[in-house]
Formats: sequence, C-alpha cells, structure tokens
Amino acid sequence: MIRIVIAGPRGRMGREAVSLVHRTEHFNLVAVVDRVNEGKTLAELDGFPAIESPIFTDLERCLQTVQADVLIDLTTPEVGKRHAEVALRYGVRPVVGTTGFTDDDLARLTQIAEEKKIGAIIAPNFAIGAILMMKFAQMAAKYFPHAEIIELHHDQKLDAPSGTALKTAQLIQQVRSSFMQGHPAEKETIEGARGALYDGMRIHSVRLPGLVAHQEVIFGGDGQTLTIRHDSFNRASFMSGVRFSVETVMKLETLVYGLEHLIE
Amino acid sequence: MIRIVIAGPRGRMGREAVSLVHRTEHFNLVAVVDRVNEGKTLAELDGFPAIESPIFTDLERCLQTVQADVLIDLTTPEVGKRHAEVALRYGVRPVVGTTGFTDDDLARLTQIAEEKKIGAIIAPNFAIGAILMMKFAQMAAKYFPHAEIIELHHDQKLDAPSGTALKTAQLIQQVRSSFMQGHPAEKETIEGARGALYDGMRIHSVRLPGLVAHQEVIFGGDGQTLTIRHDSFNRASFMSGVRFSVETVMKLETLVYGLEHLIE
Amino acid sequence: MIRIVIAGPRGRMGREAVSLVHRTEHFNLVAVVDRVNEGKTLAELDGFPAIESPIFTDLERCLQTVQADVLIDLTTPEVGKRHAEVALRYGVRPVVGTTGFTDDDLARLTQIAEEKKIGAIIAPNFAIGAILMMKFAQMAAKYFPHAEIIELHHDQKLDAPSGTALKTAQLIQQVRSSFMQGHPAEKETIEGARGALYDGMRIHSVRLPGLVAHQEVIFGGDGQTLTIRHDSFNRASFMSGVRFSVETVMKLETLVYGLEHLIE
Amino acid sequence: MIRIVIAGPRGRMGREAVSLVHRTEHFNLVAVVDRVNEGKTLAELDGFPAIESPIFTDLERCLQTVQADVLIDLTTPEVGKRHAEVALRYGVRPVVGTTGFTDDDLARLTQIAEEKKIGAIIAPNFAIGAILMMKFAQMAAKYFPHAEIIELHHDQKLDAPSGTALKTAQLIQQVRSSFMQGHPAEKETIEGARGALYDGMRIHSVRLPGLVAHQEVIFGGDGQTLTIRHDSFNRASFMSGVRFSVETVMKLETLVYGLEHLIE
Repeated sequence: MIRIVIAGPRGRMGREAVSLVHRTEHFNLVAVVDRVNEGKTLAELDGFPAIESPIFTDLERCLQTVQADVLIDLTTPEVGKRHAEVALRYGVRPVVGTTGFTDDDLARLTQIAEEKKIGAIIAPNFAIGAILMMKFAQMAAKYFPHAEIIELHHDQKLDAPSGTALKTAQLIQQVRSSFMQGHPAEKETIEGARGALYDGMRIHSVRLPGLVAHQEVIFGGDGQTLTIRHDSFNRASFMSGVRFSVETVMKLETLVYGLEHLIE
Repeated sequence: MIRIVIAGPRGRMGREAVSLVHRTEHFNLVAVVDRVNEGKTLAELDGFPAIESPIFTDLERCLQTVQADVLIDLTTPEVGKRHAEVALRYGVRPVVGTTGFTDDDLARLTQIAEEKKIGAIIAPNFAIGAILMMKFAQMAAKYFPHAEIIELHHDQKLDAPSGTALKTAQLIQQVRSSFMQGHPAEKETIEGARGALYDGMRIHSVRLPGLVAHQEVIFGGDGQTLTIRHDSFNRASFMSGVRFSVETVMKLETLVYGLEHLIE
Repeated sequence: MIRIVIAGPRGRMGREAVSLVHRTEHFNLVAVVDRVNEGKTLAELDGFPAIESPIFTDLERCLQTVQADVLIDLTTPEVGKRHAEVALRYGVRPVVGTTGFTDDDLARLTQIAEEKKIGAIIAPNFAIGAILMMKFAQMAAKYFPHAEIIELHHDQKLDAPSGTALKTAQLIQQVRSSFMQGHPAEKETIEGARGALYDGMRIHSVRLPGLVAHQEVIFGGDGQTLTIRHDSFNRASFMSGVRFSVETVMKLETLVYGLEHLIE
Repeated sequence: MIRIVIAGPRGRMGREAVSLVHRTEHFNLVAVVDRVNEGKTLAELDGFPAIESPIFTDLERCLQTVQADVLIDLTTPEVGKRHAEVALRYGVRPVVGTTGFTDDDLARLTQIAEEKKIGAIIAPNFAIGAILMMKFAQMAAKYFPHAEIIELHHDQKLDAPSGTALKTAQLIQQVRSSFMQGHPAEKETIEGARGALYDGMRIHSVRLPGLVAHQEVIFGGDGQTLTIRHDSFNRASFMSGVRFSVETVMKLETLVYGLEHLIE
C-alpha cells in the first residue's frame, strides 16, 4: 500500500488523479493539499463523493500530521517547485507534473533526494503513450532515416506544428545525419503542400473539429513503411503516467527529470 | 462470352490488360492491335506464354477479319481517338484509357454511338477505388463540411499536391459553401505546417521511399471523424476498372466519359 | 429561425441537445418537456446556466402555450411514440431519437404527417458519420465484393460483434452475390483468428481500454484497398445528426424512418 | 568500400540483393556464387545488364581467387550452413538469410568467428521494419499490458494467424503478467468475433485481395491508444535488413543470430 498526498485536487488533472488513487487498490489517499477548505474532507466538496481524505492548506502541516510515501503535485510551477523541496525534506517522494524548473532547481532537489536516499520525479508530460511514441520514433530513425510526422488536433488549437511534433523531430534529428528528404526536383504547385520543413523532414498539422490529440510518425524504406501512432482521447490519458511515476518513484534513490529516462 | 480486341498490348497497362482478359472466364481475347508484328501471335512475343491471339497492325483490317464486341484501347491520345471512332463505325464498343479528347471529339463519338445504339467508355482514370474515394468524399462533404486531405506517395514523385488530391478538393468545393477552416487565429510557427490551402481546406503531401500511391480524406464533426482512404499498391489496381468498363459498356447505348458517371 | 421544443432535457443525449440548440444561431429553444419541474426554467436547474426556456411536464399543454416548429424527443420508446403523435396533431414536426416503433405505429404516424403535410423523422441512430460509413460500404461492395469489417470499442462492451458491424454486413450482403471469402484451403492454427463469419465475410471485434467506438470497413481488389472508417469520440457525435434532422424535417411532407433514407 | 560476394544471385531475394549491392556506393560486388555458369559474368545472364562480376560455382575457389569482406548467402538451409563455415575459415564475414541452423551449428560457427575475431550474422528475417515493430511492441507492453494484434495479408495466405503475429504475441507475453483481456462477461454473438486467444490477448487475421503483408499492434490505456504498424509492400522490404547486416557485420567480432539482437 502506497500512502499518497495530492496537491491541487480540484484542478482538471487533480480530479483525475484523485479518482485514479481512489480506485487503485494498492494506493491510499491519506490527505490532499488545497488553497482553501482547511479542516474539511474531500467528501464535503462537490464532485468527490465518499472520499474522506482530509484537506490541508499547508503542505508542511499536512506532512507533520499524516504519514505519507508520495506527494503528487499538480499545482502551478511556483507552488510545485516549493512543494517538491518540502516533500523531500520530510522524506516524502515528490511526483511533480508542473514545468518551470531551472537547472539550479533540479540540481538542488537532486542533492536533497540523494542525501535522503529517496526518489523524486519531475514530469513535464505524463502521457506515457506520447513518450513511448517519441522514444520509438528516435529508435526507428537510426534504421529508417526517412520520416514524416503528421499531427492531428481539434480546430481550436492555435499553433502548428504541435510541441510534441517538434520534440519528436528534434529526437529524430539527434540520431540521423542531416539530409534533405524528398526528390531534389520536387515542387509545390500550391505552397505549403509539403508541410513544415525541420532538418530535412516534413511535419504536417491537421486541424478538424471532432479530433482530440493524435500524432503519427511514418518511416519509409525499401518496399516498406513503419508507423508509430498515439491517440489521446481525453485527459485520463495522463493518468497512466501518474500511476507509473508513483510506482517507480518508490524504487528510485535520486531525482529523474522526464519520464523518457525511466522507460526501458 | 465477351469478345475483346486490345490495342497497345505491349505497354505496361496493355500487358496487365492482356493478363486480365486471358484469366477472366467470360472474356475472350480475339485479337490485338500493335504497331509491329503483323501476322504473328502474342505467344511468339516475349512475356505472353501460350496466348494465341493474332496480332494486327491496323485496327480496320483487324475488325474486318475477327468478330469482336469490345475494343480496349491503351495506346496514346492520338491513336486512341482514331481507334474509338473506327471501332464505333464497325459496331464495336470502345473502352479507351487515354486522355486528350476535346469536347468536339466527345460530341462526334457520342453521336456515332447513339446512331449505332452501342456503348462507349472513355476513362482517363481506371482506378475504380480512387473514383469511389472521390465520390464518397463529395457525398460526405455535404454533411461534414470540414475536410482535410492527406496524400502519400513515393519520394520520386515531383509535384505536390497530387492530381487526385486536387480533383478531390474540387469535388468537395462543389458541394459546400466556401469557408476558411481552422481557428481564425491559428498560426504556423514553421511555414507550411498547415499544408496547401484550397478553398479553405488543407491538403498535405507526404513523400517517402516505400510508399506507392495512397490518399485519405478526413472529415471532422462534433465528437467524430469519418475517413475515406484508398491505397494503390501496384498497376494491377487499374484492372478492376477495365473489367468493370468492359462489362458495363455492353449494356450502354451511348458514350460515357469518366467512370464516376457509371458508379451508383 | 426554427423554434424547438426538447423532450427529455436532463438525459445524457438531452443535455447535449439543449447545448446544441442553444449555441446554434438559427435555432431557438422555446420550451422543454420534463417529468418534473413544471413552471421552472432550465436556468434554475443544475447544469443549464442562463438558458431561460420554460419547463412543462405535459407536451400538449406546452404546445398549447408556445409556438413551435420542431419537437426533438430524446425520452423513452413509450413516451417518444406518444409524443410523436401529439406533436403531429399540433402541427409540430417530430424528430424522435428512440426505438421501438412497430410497423403499425409508423403507418399511423405517416398518415397523420401526410394529412398535415408536415415532416417527421424517426431516427434509431443519429450518428450521421456512422450512417455515411454504412451507406458508402454498401456502395463500394458493388465494385469490391471482398470486404472485412473491424470494429473497435472500449473493453466494457459486452457483445461482439457490435450492432453497427452487423448492420454494415447486412447492407453489404444485399448488394453482392453470396460467396466465401479467403482461400478455400485457409486454416486457423488458433481458433477464431479469422473472426466472425457472416455471409462469407469476416468481422473482427477489438476491445481495449482507451478506445471509444470505431469501425473500419476494408475492401480489397486487384492491387488496391479502399477503407472507410468512422471514429466516434464522445456523445456529441450524435448531435450533427440531430441538427441535420431538424433542418431536414422542415422541408419534408411525410415521415421518414432512418436517416440513411435522407442521405443523398 | 565493402567487397561483397553473393551466393544465390538468381533467386528472388538474390536478384534484389545484386541490385542493392550494385546501386550502393560503398558496396562492391566482387563475385557471385551460383550452381551453374562458371566462368561467365552476371552481365551475360538475363536480367543483370552491365554487372560484370564473375560467376563461380564453388565458394572456396571463389574466395581463393577474389578478395572479399562479406558473403551474402541467399541459397538454401543446407548450402547456407556450409557456406557460412567456409566463409569464416577464409576470414570472410557471412551474412546468411536462410533458416535451419541447429544450436550445435550456431555454437560451432560462433567459435570459429571468435577465433578469427570477425563477425557473422544469421538472420531468419531481414525485414528490419517488422523486427522494430516487434521490439517496440514488447517495450510498450510493459507500460500498456492491454494489446491486440491485427495482421492483414493477401487472400492467398493459408495459415492464420501469421508467424509474425504469433512471434509478436510471444514477445508481449514475456514482459507482462498473464491475464485475460476484455470484460469478464463479454460474449460472442457470432463465434470468432473476438479473434484468436493467445495468453489473454486477441489476434485478428484479415485476408483480402490487394493486400500484401501488414500488421498493427494496438495498445490501450486510460484515454489513449498507442499503435505500431508495419506495412510491407514488396520483396524489396528485406533489403534494408541486408544492407544493415552488411554494415554491421564489419564491426562485430562474434556471431549474432537474429537481427533483433543488433537493434538498440
């Protein structure tokens, strides 16, 4: 049984995390840390039927009161950073889903984790399926250097290409010799047909109502293609990464930044 | 049993057509028309084992000599045009796979076909799967006006987007009110990410070694997508259109230009 | 502006329909019919912020009080049947999303609709994307008789194959000569590999967590495949069918059963 | 420049290999070993225009005459086994694409390779894309234990599921705890709908004309799916594995059985 505190239980990710911990047999939600509602229990708030975990507004007081193994922090960059350090000092392993950590922050937290001999995970992206897609894409590019990326999102998304597509292209770039794909004499009869150019490879951004968040990376070689595709249908897709992190952080004795370094 | 003459038997399409007619039970290859080899049989040439059909270098002489129902012409625009007329005058139904017919040509041939009360088919594209894809795309666009086209070809293809992608976009344009897809404030952080713009919709051209000729049209609506995809793996993909045309031309009493007008 | 009454506004489909009508510019939600809450407005209930439509518990009283063009009924088979008749008698076009209509029911309602010269739509399935998929599959099967169906759903679904897969197979069966697909000598080394057998074609049911409701129909021919795929990501997918029905029922002068008969 | 001898140049794989070596800049085809045609050059045979490599009927004589770095053997199990040993004794690295090696064979060849300090590769499957697909599937199964396999082949294939699908399922089985996927109460209304059962996971075999050789492995988790797909369009798909093997064998100092052990 892993004893868990969740910070930020009423945010969109936080609600999913409460639900995840609540329904996972070997997880126990011993408390939550929220900005308000000190002294109440989750069950008294809207949307958490029958979850009797106590609410604290201060993490230190919380950790002085309850026995915990892991802190899941889904708050803000500023708060997440502070919480990570407090948790470590109390011997509680932090799993933090916020961004904004500087190299200095990471160095300081790593030092505390190693002194305490406990794990810590900082994960800007919990979508473990997306992380696997990127990792496989990088591996495949060693053998199939010709790659194109198609990312597909709902039509309310403003920027193209997506951050994940760019990250994928960077990972591919790291393992192949730079070269220009396609026929040297190819020409666009309508501008943009061949997509965005990144280090010789092409990225295509599809935007349609109905779509959620999807990406496929296609590799082409002699007489064959290899395709790696991730489909994210809703926010729950982050939860497998949270569960994996909670289970993994129990076995670590240092800080790890980015789930990709935990995937074997 | 349908008695067939093939013009252009040694070209790439012609060889496939000879093979198709030869192995189809209710088809009979009564003769072929070639530029050379008058008086020989196909069996005497390289690559046509045991096909004893006689070779003529002149279509008129051929049709004076053998009894035929259908002429399959896979030659050149110039020859195809002349052959279509000769065949009709001899009461033989032409199925012509070449392009380059003017409106005048079609009007003249239609008149002869209707006088003779026999069918004729001129088909610039025999890939019946591609024709169905385009037809379905046009039908779907009435109900799902948001569409994007992804066409994927081998990396030796020079032009982007493909002709089929453009044809598809035109067909969609005919049935929907013109509008700009995507978020009004969307922006490309790398130019070209959103693809080629055609009447408010986007076309993306993927080029990779290993690919042959593929296209998918994705329609998005509330909480759903509808996707129509055609994969062409090799030249044989044209043959289902040739077979369909031969069978259909026997039942027509006029000329039809484009297989899309025969699909119900 | 189309004036609309919704019956069943608090059900899962009903809530989506209220939202749809509310955000569609040329739709006006003039009233709702609910089992309770007579005299209140939707805005007073949970989850309908700022929607001031009055609530009636009886459809007749509602239609005596407000001027309406269309009734959208998302209640139960028993109530839907009664509501359809009441609406027609009041000159209001019913769009009914429940099942359970007998041939006699349909005949009686058709007669009233034709007397009144107004439209009525009974739609067991509002997912217009799924209806298009089935229609296209039937059309394609005339030219590509070799078909296989893969349907993919979340792993809480109990029955396999899905109702939509069976309906698709029936529609294909109607237009092709019955025959056994696959090689006559093919054999399963593990039972079930080749899927469910329906009139010589194969249906495969995939069940995985994360999936929602998806189906693809693959047609194979010489050197090519044609694939038609529908992905339904959430309940909103029914709403494009509701909107289409409301707009279409205004132009009809009879009853239509099943949206497939309205797709051109 | 890598100096290469090909054994079995007139077989279907052999012809592809000759073409590959011929068009690869840093490869040099110094000789071929064939059952007949001693003393001729490839250019004198049908289908090898302008390839002047000499033909030998005996590998030993060949290796006494020309200087070679690598032997690509695409003959038969019996011959391949003998050739591998001869090559190693002459200090030439064998890349062998035949099956049928016993554990004893492999042990003996490994010993010679290590004595000579040169590499040797025995690869029952050169389709590097398929090998990557299997490797990624195994990696993904650690994080997403729910998996289904869909393999799609032309309808002349006799056995279902395919060997690759079974191999994939075995690899997944190795890394996950055994469990029964799907809902415990799920039921097939037509037998076989849920596919072949292998260690709790399902395999579906699609057979259609037009298809070549394709497989996709779908993993499902909370709100997401991860899909890995390999499409093999023709025999050339084996050649990327041959090229990779030739380049890799130059850096090895032992024997490796199966390309999966060379993929990082």
